[in-house]
Amino acid sequence: MDTKELALKKHAEWQGKLSVNCKEPITNKEELSIAYTPGVAAPCLEIEKDESLAYTYTGKGNTVAVITDGTAVLGLGDIGPSAGMPVMEGKCALFKSFANIDAVPICVNSKDPKEIIDTVYNISKSFGGINLEDISAPRCFEIERALIEKCDIPVFHDDQHGTAIITCAGLLNACKLLKKPMGEMKIAISGAGSAGISIAKMIIAMGFGDVVLCGSKGTIYDGAPYNNPEQQKMTEITNKNNIQGSLADAMKGADILIGVSKPGVVSKEMIQTMAKDPIVFVMANPVPEIMPDEAKAAGAAVVGTGRSDFPNQVNNVLAFPGIFRGALDGRAAKITEEMKMAAAKAIAGVITEKELSADYVLPDPFNPAVVPAVAEAVKSCLK
Amino acid sequence: MDTKELALKKHAEWQGKLSVNCKEPITNKEELSIAYTPGVAAPCLEIEKDESLAYTYTGKGNTVAVITDGTAVLGLGDIGPSAGMPVMEGKCALFKSFANIDAVPICVNSKDPKEIIDTVYNISKSFGGINLEDISAPRCFEIERALIEKCDIPVFHDDQHGTAIITCAGLLNACKLLKKPMGEMKIAISGAGSAGISIAKMIIAMGFGDVVLCGSKGTIYDGAPYNNPEQQKMTEITNKNNIQGSLADAMKGADILIGVSKPGVVSKEMIQTMAKDPIVFVMANPVPEIMPDEAKAAGAAVVGTGRSDFPNQVNNVLAFPGIFRGALDGRAAKITEEMKMAAAKAIAGVITEKELSADYVLPDPFNPAVVPAVAEAVKSCLK
Repeated sequence: MDTKELALKKHAEWQGKLSVNCKEPITNKEELSIAYTPGVAAPCLEIEKDESLAYTYTGKGNTVAVITDGTAVLGLGDIGPSAGMPVMEGKCALFKSFANIDAVPICVNSKDPKEIIDTVYNISKSFGGINLEDISAPRCFEIERALIEKCDIPVFHDDQHGTAIITCAGLLNACKLLKKPMGEMKIAISGAGSAGISIAKMIIAMGFGDVVLCGSKGTIYDGAPYNNPEQQKMTEITNKNNIQGSLADAMKGADILIGVSKPGVVSKEMIQTMAKDPIVFVMANPVPEIMPDEAKAAGAAVVGTGRSDFPNQVNNVLAFPGIFRGALDGRAAKITEEMKMAAAKAIAGVITEKELSADYVLPDPFNPAVVPAVAEAVKSCLK
Repeated sequence: MDTKELALKKHAEWQGKLSVNCKEPITNKEELSIAYTPGVAAPCLEIEKDESLAYTYTGKGNTVAVITDGTAVLGLGDIGPSAGMPVMEGKCALFKSFANIDAVPICVNSKDPKEIIDTVYNISKSFGGINLEDISAPRCFEIERALIEKCDIPVFHDDQHGTAIITCAGLLNACKLLKKPMGEMKIAISGAGSAGISIAKMIIAMGFGDVVLCGSKGTIYDGAPYNNPEQQKMTEITNKNNIQGSLADAMKGADILIGVSKPGVVSKEMIQTMAKDPIVFVMANPVPEIMPDEAKAAGAAVVGTGRSDFPNQVNNVLAFPGIFRGALDGRAAKITEEMKMAAAKAIAGVITEKELSADYVLPDPFNPAVVPAVAEAVKSCLK
């Protein structure tokens, strides 16, 4: 049975990957009178007096909503809210399995950003955090920004920041391994959607060097008009030399290539034009921009992908469970830039200098040291 | 330790009465590839083709959202969405304990009916049913009506219908016991809010006889102007003799008194003016309209209350778990009037003719025969 058949079979057996359980079942009148009426009135009244007691008397402090509108589910595109549900349930299962967080999958039946913002804000008091998922760009930027501003709990669009954090973790270790000077890197990014833009922002914030973003029509440069306001904004902080051209032009002399675009857009020849010992993270899924063996044959010193069957997998599960664990435990109101950078450093730090190698710049997603290290790093930003 | 102290202690220990769990934990790459990427794409694509497959491949068919705006929580009034959460969690715990339904507590941070309707509708695709809870009247009518119309899953405001269903179940058995002729009953209801109006509607639909509703300003009659449009509507189907006066006037010669108002509004003398062997359900909580011993001393033949320490407890847990169990199992799009009446009859039917007595017209909430009987009755309406 192949993966597809097995997945259908297992999903039909499960009829949902999650269950909601009582910490203590209600089996008699005494238990009912404590967990429900009349006893339950006491914690209600305490929370009415002091809303922060919701963290004491309800599950708020360990509950995250995983929310999509179904517009950019996996690589499947706009398949709608109901069809996005198996992914949201899967994400919730990861929250539980990796960080013991109670996560609730919610699909919003609207594509209007304002309506999505209002809906998510209106239910936000029920949760300790909100993980936005698989919302198409550029809508995802507006939605996340508005919700971060309105909500008093952390809001985190994993597709943007998760990949960015782990990419940066991998780059930290790759630069360390190859003794490349941070701050002087030239970085080309293939893909100027939400992932590419978020990675660019984080790479710049962490001080790796200058980034050139490449969309389907070529490099993003100052002077071109962009319909996507996020791309327009990126012209201010990227592409210092204002390179106008194709991905091949952006890659010439670059130390680092990040791919979040589509299969086959990078050739061996293009890798060969990069600086010595280039770092190549090609994360198109399931087929990367260039296959790792080809990239290595063309001179790449470190290669990462989104796949679990190659070394250095950029897997979001390295970041979001620990980030939310730390944010919830610290009762953070926001996930700050500082926390994201601390998370990247913590992920990189799981691998010791001695262990570090070209095929091991990112820890295995199932390495049990990752979540506690990330959670601790995030929490320490709150002190 | 009294109930209040114990409830605070237990709630602080639990930090939330619910947990969200994986039916199968994700512990290695193979499991990850089935429950999440790449395997999860297969059920997503199936649901995209046929939305009804959400019942096969996700938890939709066993998941209910328990939703409040915090405006009428227990008898505590408008305590806000966060303070309403312990009750919603408790309700979800009851859904699980009684009917093995996965229920998710959600508090809506708005008091505007339109905004609440939009918010709940927008998240409704994530669930197989919606239980509205503790929303103040008359807003609750408008909100429920709009959501029933918009959503393709059952929407049920338990405070209205739950009490009505169980009251009718108790009345069915009390009339049977006392050999009172259905259809010829005179019924007085103390309380003209959402519970009173819903009970009146259901009593009339089930053909018990004529109802006179009494609010705080006296009987609801044709000719008086009512700000509450629901009360205005009730003038068309209640109070055939157009009694204008107080609760005492409505009770004169009545066979049945239903109280959903407040403590102490019914006296022994008022009971004494009722017809022979009157049936008295006084459900103000925690102190009923008249205490059961007083009502009996004044001649009441059957007395029911909302309390667990007296016989014939009108406890909503007799209805909603089985109703949703049946509706989910039958994939009902709505909870119809027929289903509610079938549920009332099923609850009454749990007590055999031989068992029936003045102190046993309603089954114990923990009687394991109740939920299956109600579920089966609801499901049979779908055939």
